[in-house]
Amino acid sequence: MKLYEKVAHAIAERIEQSFYQAGEKLPSIRALSLAHEVSISTAQEAYRLLEDQGWAESRPKSGFYVINRQKAPQQLPDLSRPTQRPIEVSQWEEVLSLLSASTTPNLVQLSRAIPDLNAPTLKPLTRILSDLNKNAHGSMLSYEALRGSDGLRLQVARLMVDSGCRLHPDDIIITAGCQEALSSSLRAVTKPGDVVAVDSPSFYGSMQAIKAHGLKVLEIPTHPETGVSIEALELALEQWPIKAIQITPTCNNPLGYTMPVEHKKRLLALTARYDIPIIEDDIYGDLSYTSPRPPTIKSFDTEGRVLLCSSFSKTLAPGFRIGWVAPGRYGNQVMHMKYVVTASTPTITQLGIAEFIAQGGYERHIRKVRAQYHQSRDVMIGWVEKYFPQGTKISYPQGGFLLWVELPDDIDTITLNERTMTKGVSIAPGVLFSASGKYRNCMRLNFTDKSSEKNENAIKLIASTIHEMVSELKQQPHMITI
Amino acid sequence: MKLYEKVAHAIAERIEQSFYQAGEKLPSIRALSLAHEVSISTAQEAYRLLEDQGWAESRPKSGFYVINRQKAPQQLPDLSRPTQRPIEVSQWEEVLSLLSASTTPNLVQLSRAIPDLNAPTLKPLTRILSDLNKNAHGSMLSYEALRGSDGLRLQVARLMVDSGCRLHPDDIIITAGCQEALSSSLRAVTKPGDVVAVDSPSFYGSMQAIKAHGLKVLEIPTHPETGVSIEALELALEQWPIKAIQITPTCNNPLGYTMPVEHKKRLLALTARYDIPIIEDDIYGDLSYTSPRPPTIKSFDTEGRVLLCSSFSKTLAPGFRIGWVAPGRYGNQVMHMKYVVTASTPTITQLGIAEFIAQGGYERHIRKVRAQYHQSRDVMIGWVEKYFPQGTKISYPQGGFLLWVELPDDIDTITLNERTMTKGVSIAPGVLFSASGKYRNCMRLNFTDKSSEKNENAIKLIASTIHEMVSELKQQPHMITI
Repeated sequence: MKLYEKVAHAIAERIEQSFYQAGEKLPSIRALSLAHEVSISTAQEAYRLLEDQGWAESRPKSGFYVINRQKAPQQLPDLSRPTQRPIEVSQWEEVLSLLSASTTPNLVQLSRAIPDLNAPTLKPLTRILSDLNKNAHGSMLSYEALRGSDGLRLQVARLMVDSGCRLHPDDIIITAGCQEALSSSLRAVTKPGDVVAVDSPSFYGSMQAIKAHGLKVLEIPTHPETGVSIEALELALEQWPIKAIQITPTCNNPLGYTMPVEHKKRLLALTARYDIPIIEDDIYGDLSYTSPRPPTIKSFDTEGRVLLCSSFSKTLAPGFRIGWVAPGRYGNQVMHMKYVVTASTPTITQLGIAEFIAQGGYERHIRKVRAQYHQSRDVMIGWVEKYFPQGTKISYPQGGFLLWVELPDDIDTITLNERTMTKGVSIAPGVLFSASGKYRNCMRLNFTDKSSEKNENAIKLIASTIHEMVSELKQQPHMITI
Repeated sequence: MKLYEKVAHAIAERIEQSFYQAGEKLPSIRALSLAHEVSISTAQEAYRLLEDQGWAESRPKSGFYVINRQKAPQQLPDLSRPTQRPIEVSQWEEVLSLLSASTTPNLVQLSRAIPDLNAPTLKPLTRILSDLNKNAHGSMLSYEALRGSDGLRLQVARLMVDSGCRLHPDDIIITAGCQEALSSSLRAVTKPGDVVAVDSPSFYGSMQAIKAHGLKVLEIPTHPETGVSIEALELALEQWPIKAIQITPTCNNPLGYTMPVEHKKRLLALTARYDIPIIEDDIYGDLSYTSPRPPTIKSFDTEGRVLLCSSFSKTLAPGFRIGWVAPGRYGNQVMHMKYVVTASTPTITQLGIAEFIAQGGYERHIRKVRAQYHQSRDVMIGWVEKYFPQGTKISYPQGGFLLWVELPDDIDTITLNERTMTKGVSIAPGVLFSASGKYRNCMRLNFTDKSSEKNENAIKLIASTIHEMVSELKQQPHMITI
């Protein structure tokens, strides 16, 4: 541990022990330097780290303050209880309706998983892209290599070191976002009619890919803090001819948990026993609130059994459509799928992102947004606890910018969303995250935006709509939910 | 016919009748205006049209000259004779090797279908993209609508009027190049195991998509001037359970023909009788040497049976990865495939291309490159006739920038390519365009580049390598080709 990390750690401990209270002013940089007998610059570094980790915030011309850290929510969602047999995925109409709604102007969009796109730390990237486009000609306008640009694959390989992966750039294939990575991986390791096991609730995009490929899905019970139940998965593997496992073990979408390292290792060992591949979606991994970020399952994989899928859509911006896959032993099949589906990935965008990472812009941006999301998570949890009805259960995300909320049983969030949409606020109904229409009383909320009155009002609006629905239900005791 | 078109037509007729000889100076603008009793600006317009149509070229400070127009090649390839039953597609290794070679530096690449990327008429587009990127934020960095940007779909709908299509922007889905359009269309209308009929030789990208989707292909005999044989297709439809037809009827890749309008109509009527969809690849359609460009099959389709696929990869540049599909009655299935595979198409690129078209830049660029390709086709045919061995058969492209060459039977173009590659020149071996390893003695050559010594030398090098191979074969009369 470096000196500034020690100092930061000491302060963090005191905040945790309530020695410094939420909202209280922390010692000045000079005071800290004196107290710990370190240089001014070390004290500054320590505060930078405390900011990054979400313990402290700086207020201009005033100093550093303890962040109003929200405690874990009082009630977490229960272990999920999805259907215990392979089924076909439905819900395409619901997904389409979510996607279409997101083009409505002036909507407060808490529905889609879009990161903060107005962060000033993205500016250097758009400037690089502007310069590259200015005089682009010849090979810059041509097909990039099928596998992706050399420069970008090198940078991705370097980034992945943080997650414990030691990969050669040739182990990586650049894709049209994480969606192409997931979709190509699925098709590379399965045949129509096969069964794929997933965590549940699960990202609707990968479930729709499962549907499109003519596969069946087996949803595995999942814990809101530790992820997919290894025991349940083991039973499922004994019982069903599962051909692949598709999960998001780090900063999960939608539940926000990060699976403990021991669970990740057990999962890998289990799949080795059954000789099946894991498609690991790591798209939110770099947005973990802890630093260094948690390791991927891929980082423990010595057999090339894990296809790691990720992208810059959540860390930078989704409009670029740049993702990647490290397909392990399935490289040739994934390349074929990549070729027949998109032939190659946009050239200049790859060059631009590679340059941005090389210049250190990626790391700077991630540090900023990670602290921002950590902070806005707590604000959002605070609002939901304050305004939503009693009995509401809330996830406690360890990274990313998505909150999962479980309402009282009778509240249908499709109806809720229809009502809030008319008032300018959208949510993601829970049913999208199930293959079979479960989670009807759940929703996912985006908390990227720094705390603002606009967002608090949106949460109040959702809350009051829920209260309306609750009292309507009470007035109709003869209505039975079918 | 407008006045300037009449004047241009009169001049073109005289060139055709050898009243003006190849390379001869044409009347000055003033002389033309006096002779035809038209204004100076009408005379100028007439010469602009003659340039666009490839009859004349302007030489700076000198005037207009008759282009050295090549006559049709002496010997066209024969009607193709592919395997007469549904088969699985192979050749993935060969395609991969072609794609990988194209990243070799300093290679004279006659192998891949890449347009001229140094045309000055592309500059306004890269400038627009540079400006858009400069201050990009918020929604410009977010997911574009699944269907594609409103602005780009409007412009595409307008462009398609030239090909006889009257479409609403909502009839169009923007894709990651034509490859995603073709691939999504195929998956939307077939199930694994189905049989798809194709023209033959056929674009390797769509055949690899057929392979990836677990489909079988039935290659239909194809005429080098009129395209897929309607009679052969009719017989095939009687005999096999064909579920879709995938063809490139306008400025075909690799043969260069444009199917006559009457054939297009007959083909459409035939599929109506069997109630099967046509996947029409129109990627080279706007590069037809005739103006206005030929109509698509889609333009005659009143039943939504045709899925029209295209892109800007051959008309502008492939590095943008922007294409589209007008899927007719199969819209919902194609949207689902689009969603699960790429989720959306890069945002800023769509905005930029839409702006470029709206400003008239697309039309200006197409006029220039069309004339250029028309001219370089003739130069390339001249070289091949001059340097290649007797008995060589050559296609006579009606648009685009690709030439198909059929060598004496014994020459294997995979070997030929291996040899020319060591000397810095690549060709596309014919075998890539067959599902089953036919066309071993054929190749496809790119003629985008304006005539240059570098290209003439490349053709000479290919020719001398062929002559080498011919004499090696003569010296080994005991060798039997298996």
